[in-house]
Amino acid sequence: MSADGTEAVVFDAYGTLLDVGAIHAACASLVEDPATFSSLWRRTQLESTWLRSLMGRYVDFWQITEAALDHVAAATRTRLGEDERRRLMDAWLEIDPYPEAAEAIGRLEAVGPLAVLSNGSPSMLEAALTSAGLRARFAHVLSVDEVGIYKPAPAAYGLAERHLGAPRDRLLFVSGNGWDAAGAKAFGMRVALVDRTGIPSHRLGMDLDLVVGDLGDLADRLSAPAG
Amino acid sequence: MSADGTEAVVFDAYGTLLDVGAIHAACASLVEDPATFSSLWRRTQLESTWLRSLMGRYVDFWQITEAALDHVAAATRTRLGEDERRRLMDAWLEIDPYPEAAEAIGRLEAVGPLAVLSNGSPSMLEAALTSAGLRARFAHVLSVDEVGIYKPAPAAYGLAERHLGAPRDRLLFVSGNGWDAAGAKAFGMRVALVDRTGIPSHRLGMDLDLVVGDLGDLADRLSAPAG
Repeated sequence: MSADGTEAVVFDAYGTLLDVGAIHAACASLVEDPATFSSLWRRTQLESTWLRSLMGRYVDFWQITEAALDHVAAATRTRLGEDERRRLMDAWLEIDPYPEAAEAIGRLEAVGPLAVLSNGSPSMLEAALTSAGLRARFAHVLSVDEVGIYKPAPAAYGLAERHLGAPRDRLLFVSGNGWDAAGAKAFGMRVALVDRTGIPSHRLGMDLDLVVGDLGDLADRLSAPAG
Repeated sequence: MSADGTEAVVFDAYGTLLDVGAIHAACASLVEDPATFSSLWRRTQLESTWLRSLMGRYVDFWQITEAALDHVAAATRTRLGEDERRRLMDAWLEIDPYPEAAEAIGRLEAVGPLAVLSNGSPSMLEAALTSAGLRARFAHVLSVDEVGIYKPAPAAYGLAERHLGAPRDRLLFVSGNGWDAAGAKAFGMRVALVDRTGIPSHRLGMDLDLVVGDLGDLADRLSAPAG
């Protein structure tokens, strides 16, 4: 337990542990304007999770990601062959971790058990965390697939409370996505936002507990003596 | 009633009756890159409605729109004085209708009662529809504010069924927004998408009943003899 009573640390995956910039790189040789294409793909993917959750029409994150790819290809008039489509989808299974992640996670183990809570489907998460060399560091890898609704719905964050057996206000949720940090805060967790860019993120009126520059910064802050 | 059994027509407001391009025009003299600024403002506004709905943290559309403006100003390092901010917000109260709207609505009155169902707060809707010269054409102007959750949540579309007193599959919902059309279809209404650009919209796996180029096209299609 840390000095402030945090019993466990729960990480978002994409954009927090895993660098979604890798998706941009995968697009680089296959589409005309990779920066626009990859950011539109990610945006469509996320918006689809929110819209389908509100509509009560959950499908898993792999299907969301595939449909978003097909939509963005159509909207940008990009022709993708079956092989190119497969390579772009497979990029989600082999995303590099942020460079400081492994070392920082090593130091954060002193706080308590570590877990992942992600929108990703179970098989996507297992593949990506294994490929990143991080899988063994987590006692729990939790997917919203278990509850059939995406973050920021309270039921998604509830998975952490249930599986870790600790009250929400003793769990520190760590995310690089402002909307995700806001959702966890609305649910009642302690929340650290990893702000790698300094571009203000949309926090939906929620005050967060901690804003750090990267995961190493988070480990520094949590291991600093209280006072 | 139309030949196909439609008893009433329910319109989305922004992007369907009212041309949100007007917001772009309002930004033109006040910010550096009005196209980027206005599209980011609209995107943030919409995403905030979805995120807050999932979080169970409803605030009305005026507050959503104001917070989105402040966020986009901060993210793009745009300094807005109090007067400029007011002018940008006021643009939402004076949005021009699409040029064909009034004439098309006149022809659609033959189908049955006409209504508006929008994310907008009641006062925003009254002001904008009055300014556009369309207010008197609608028997009902319904705001999701009554249920405290935004489209595409089923409860939002349920307002139309309740106020119009007709079963959902006898109501034709008309929207220029693909995600909104998909939400109404998931709820069980008949749905016409107004596709003004030809850019494929994200339909979240839903098959729509009708896709038209503009509201005049819709009036043509509904008044055409069956068969």
